[in-house]
Amino acid sequence: MASLLDSIESPADLKRLSVEDLGVVAQEIRDLLIQTTANTGGHLGPNLGIVELTLAWHYVFDSPKDRLLMDVSHQCYVHKILTGRRARFDTLRQLDGLNGFMLRSESPHDHFGAGHAGTALSAALGMAVGRDRTGGTEHITALCGDAAFTCGITYEAMNNAAESTKRLIVVLNDNEWSIDKNVGAIAHYLNKIVTNDTYAHLHAQAARFLQRIGGQTALKLAHKVEEGLKGLVAFPSTLFEELGFTYYGPLDGHDIPNLVQTFRFLKEQDHPVLLHALTKKGKGFDLAIEKAKKYHGIAPGTFDPVEMKEIEAKPGVPTYSQVFADTLARLADKDSRVCAITGAMPNGTGLDRFQPKHPDKYYDVGIAEEHAVIFAAGLATQGLKPFCAIYSTFLQRAYDAIVHDVALQNLPVVFCMDRGGLSPDDGPTHHGLFDIAYLRCVPNLVHMQPKDEDEFADMLYTALMHEGPICVRYPRGAAAGVKIKASPGRLEIGKAEVVREGTRVALWGLGNMLPMAMEVADALGKDGVSCSVINPRFIKPLDEALLRECAGRAELIVTLEDHVLSGGFGSAVLEALSGFGARVPVVRIGWPDQFVEHGNLPALRAKHGLTAGAALAKVRAALAGRGERAS
Amino acid sequence: MASLLDSIESPADLKRLSVEDLGVVAQEIRDLLIQTTANTGGHLGPNLGIVELTLAWHYVFDSPKDRLLMDVSHQCYVHKILTGRRARFDTLRQLDGLNGFMLRSESPHDHFGAGHAGTALSAALGMAVGRDRTGGTEHITALCGDAAFTCGITYEAMNNAAESTKRLIVVLNDNEWSIDKNVGAIAHYLNKIVTNDTYAHLHAQAARFLQRIGGQTALKLAHKVEEGLKGLVAFPSTLFEELGFTYYGPLDGHDIPNLVQTFRFLKEQDHPVLLHALTKKGKGFDLAIEKAKKYHGIAPGTFDPVEMKEIEAKPGVPTYSQVFADTLARLADKDSRVCAITGAMPNGTGLDRFQPKHPDKYYDVGIAEEHAVIFAAGLATQGLKPFCAIYSTFLQRAYDAIVHDVALQNLPVVFCMDRGGLSPDDGPTHHGLFDIAYLRCVPNLVHMQPKDEDEFADMLYTALMHEGPICVRYPRGAAAGVKIKASPGRLEIGKAEVVREGTRVALWGLGNMLPMAMEVADALGKDGVSCSVINPRFIKPLDEALLRECAGRAELIVTLEDHVLSGGFGSAVLEALSGFGARVPVVRIGWPDQFVEHGNLPALRAKHGLTAGAALAKVRAALAGRGERAS
Repeated sequence: MASLLDSIESPADLKRLSVEDLGVVAQEIRDLLIQTTANTGGHLGPNLGIVELTLAWHYVFDSPKDRLLMDVSHQCYVHKILTGRRARFDTLRQLDGLNGFMLRSESPHDHFGAGHAGTALSAALGMAVGRDRTGGTEHITALCGDAAFTCGITYEAMNNAAESTKRLIVVLNDNEWSIDKNVGAIAHYLNKIVTNDTYAHLHAQAARFLQRIGGQTALKLAHKVEEGLKGLVAFPSTLFEELGFTYYGPLDGHDIPNLVQTFRFLKEQDHPVLLHALTKKGKGFDLAIEKAKKYHGIAPGTFDPVEMKEIEAKPGVPTYSQVFADTLARLADKDSRVCAITGAMPNGTGLDRFQPKHPDKYYDVGIAEEHAVIFAAGLATQGLKPFCAIYSTFLQRAYDAIVHDVALQNLPVVFCMDRGGLSPDDGPTHHGLFDIAYLRCVPNLVHMQPKDEDEFADMLYTALMHEGPICVRYPRGAAAGVKIKASPGRLEIGKAEVVREGTRVALWGLGNMLPMAMEVADALGKDGVSCSVINPRFIKPLDEALLRECAGRAELIVTLEDHVLSGGFGSAVLEALSGFGARVPVVRIGWPDQFVEHGNLPALRAKHGLTAGAALAKVRAALAGRGERAS
Repeated sequence: MASLLDSIESPADLKRLSVEDLGVVAQEIRDLLIQTTANTGGHLGPNLGIVELTLAWHYVFDSPKDRLLMDVSHQCYVHKILTGRRARFDTLRQLDGLNGFMLRSESPHDHFGAGHAGTALSAALGMAVGRDRTGGTEHITALCGDAAFTCGITYEAMNNAAESTKRLIVVLNDNEWSIDKNVGAIAHYLNKIVTNDTYAHLHAQAARFLQRIGGQTALKLAHKVEEGLKGLVAFPSTLFEELGFTYYGPLDGHDIPNLVQTFRFLKEQDHPVLLHALTKKGKGFDLAIEKAKKYHGIAPGTFDPVEMKEIEAKPGVPTYSQVFADTLARLADKDSRVCAITGAMPNGTGLDRFQPKHPDKYYDVGIAEEHAVIFAAGLATQGLKPFCAIYSTFLQRAYDAIVHDVALQNLPVVFCMDRGGLSPDDGPTHHGLFDIAYLRCVPNLVHMQPKDEDEFADMLYTALMHEGPICVRYPRGAAAGVKIKASPGRLEIGKAEVVREGTRVALWGLGNMLPMAMEVADALGKDGVSCSVINPRFIKPLDEALLRECAGRAELIVTLEDHVLSGGFGSAVLEALSGFGARVPVVRIGWPDQFVEHGNLPALRAKHGLTAGAALAKVRAALAGRGERAS
């Protein structure tokens, strides 16, 4: 079927095709995207939207010499297919398979990795300046979604661009994602451009002009074209122009001939340019257009790739994200102080379930985690109770705001850290494996992790009632499947729960690692080793009284955490034990000091020793006094 | 002398004066600022520049009901003087005295604390939204310097303002600080406004118009005034207007009657407004105008407040910042890959000494730490060696960029963390007490701290030669006073230095804490306790081989660090010891789990137990096996 695509092993193969053939390839790529992600899951919608832009870029530019940086880079599938990875595309997001994002270690065509938003323009500017300094001639393109322009780093980079280099191409891939949600002034601004009749008219004229110039002539006539375009296409876009970019657009981002012409033109410019391209998320797949939010990122088995119909989801255990949103909505029913804040992740955080119930208590600030947290601090000074729902990995973006604006002022902001722990299929850019370490050093903060959804609801209520800053981390995906009480209870800050009494070994299993602690305890019990199992609940403050008790009785303490070992929960236990002069040995189970790759959870846990079996082996070795390295 | 000012115990007293009297008060405040900071040190220049703006604000608005947020807030002295803290102003930056920044715990007039830039607009927006939700009527003003507009958070907040509230006043205090340095497009843009003849003319007209309207009439004629101003003053400032703010200005920020009128007008507006006020840093003190950079922040004893002349600085030991810049310049002489990056801190980081020698290798990106780090990552992909000079506390702003853009991609960016450790006089917003904890969990990073300036030069050279990301933290102020070798040497990564051999106690004194370790060792030596003293050099990777050796021999290991204990260097030692099953007790000396206040270094160290005496007592207690809490 996909005969043209089958012949493309590198961008050089693509260049042998005619512009007309690119349209055929586009369709073949769409088929491959749909067929593959039906099985693997992944970011289907964004990739369907960017097929023509990616094709045209690789047709005109010369990767890996020329550089294509993609903001967030979940829209890199087409790029991967075109750069020698088509045959392996079915391994997408699988262990040892293709990563779902740009990854420098995966291919020389992946010029800069990403997973978080707002970095592409900044990195591209660094590359451009580096190129200028080392006498390079390569072209550097940063392709950013419209949402990237809600992110402060993009602005910081724009502010520096014009005085730093004369050659930088920015493509604003405007798929109306943020416009749809009307988040912020920049979205309104872009919308104003797009819906302006005069400029739509000019744009049509410009397209005709470009077609008239045609083919390679454009290169030779660059200056004439420039003049022509200046008069015809360029929106007098003072916002971008004042920031030093020459603006071109808006342009149909699915019109391959026009894109090819325009890229050829932009290659010749000697000043930073911004091309505003309009694309449609999910283009070519009705389901992905109708349910744009759902099909932004899908799980495997979301739809049937033969019938092209949705597969009905089996009713299952709710996710922690759903429990979060539903619990917060219940709390907001009774407490007018509740506010929910998201940084452009209503879907991922579950807050799309909260928003319809409490639209007046819901704030989507765009991809602006720092502003989200400082804004929350401002709300808190007025007696409100902001709940910031930000993934553990994205909260890294707001670290200084947590320290400087919230904790230092002891303001009652609640940090709800979804994806605390491994985010398996997404990989290293998305794992939430550092939050204990980076928050444990910050004074005034309370930090919790629940063992199940009922305790999670208790923790959210506890956070609401707490008078200072407080954090709760919880894992990606399904909760434990227990029943949630009608009314949540308030937990005592710093008090752990003894789940099982025992003597020789004390297992402290944090949050989603508690079941593994139970398994280890069961196995040791069969050996005749009496174990206590603790649900710590609080990472900070740690239940030092209970720990002291354990230390006085046990031969061994074991900590289990879905977090790196360096500076993590087990490290907090070591500090406390050292503090009260305990000599009891500790075995710490957690992730190693390396960036953990993507893959499925069981495979990654097995690979890195986070299984009951591996833990048991370490515990037995420690009990046998063999003193092997405990981590 | 200062008879009018003496009568002002609160803003209410100010309101009893005539507008003309405010001019007298302004002069009295300037005298007080100059006389006081001659002794205490502090941010003299910015406060001299903002006297009239602060006076006019307090004259028109009603603090603490109305809120004044200041970006960075080092320009808060006038505000403190006017809000009941005049009598204590001589305690500025002293232990138990006034903090040099806004501090919520210090006064109900300090509505939002700060110390880092770019947060005021974001926090003000949170307050405004909170006010709207709770039915409040207070006015909320964010006063931001022009440099704040190089910071992405300010942009993120602007992007959200117009759709979030109808009542928000932003004052852009344009003292040409960033314009002077031509950092970025926004600086050029502001400069274009200010130097535009047409608008200067219109502004003069507008001022006359306002004076004609006069006094309380303005309030009654708000709408007429608005129309008048729209025609006369408002620059068609599309950049701010597109972001949803109505722009007014530029206005002379030292013209009290005009400021009073304008604030009265802005109070009545029902949409977010931005007032562009032009001020002069150092106004009223020739020295502070001539040497604007130096007088931005001064040390005690910089000038004679009677003669109003500079006091000649005694030639002393160079600071770590100076050693950094001079060493980097020497490295850049020989290695064309070297780049130096600062986030608007050429003076503070010492890079103003590097820039004249290597202007082509120097990048000031504005107050944009995230962009600085990602830009560096981009440079590194092109084979360059970027040295990011960012204070430890400000690097918190770029945490995600360190993890996501640099460490994950293993790019050879060097982080030079000045003010690693206590930044005594500035206080909690400026202490660099968390960097070990927040970096230790990040894979691929090397982290170092030198014992003196010669070793520091070695570390910079080591960093240049290292193929991955690498950090060096170093304290504020004077280095150790040792001679620096002609050519720096390359250190072995992860190898500590044994400074003194010994048996019973092993003291690991990190960086500037090594002298304290030596003192303790000397004292214990007199008790007949043989001590080894280790200069760790590397926080990560830790010299585990040497630690294991110590653990096998010593009765006690002692760690000393200028960092919080939670997750710090001592914590790394505990993890390593636990890893190889060592049972040796550890005493950890470092800062407690609380935000440390401002004051002088010896006083703060004494208060919090970071003295040789306090350490010695803990060590003796531990040796005596009394098992008291070691931290």
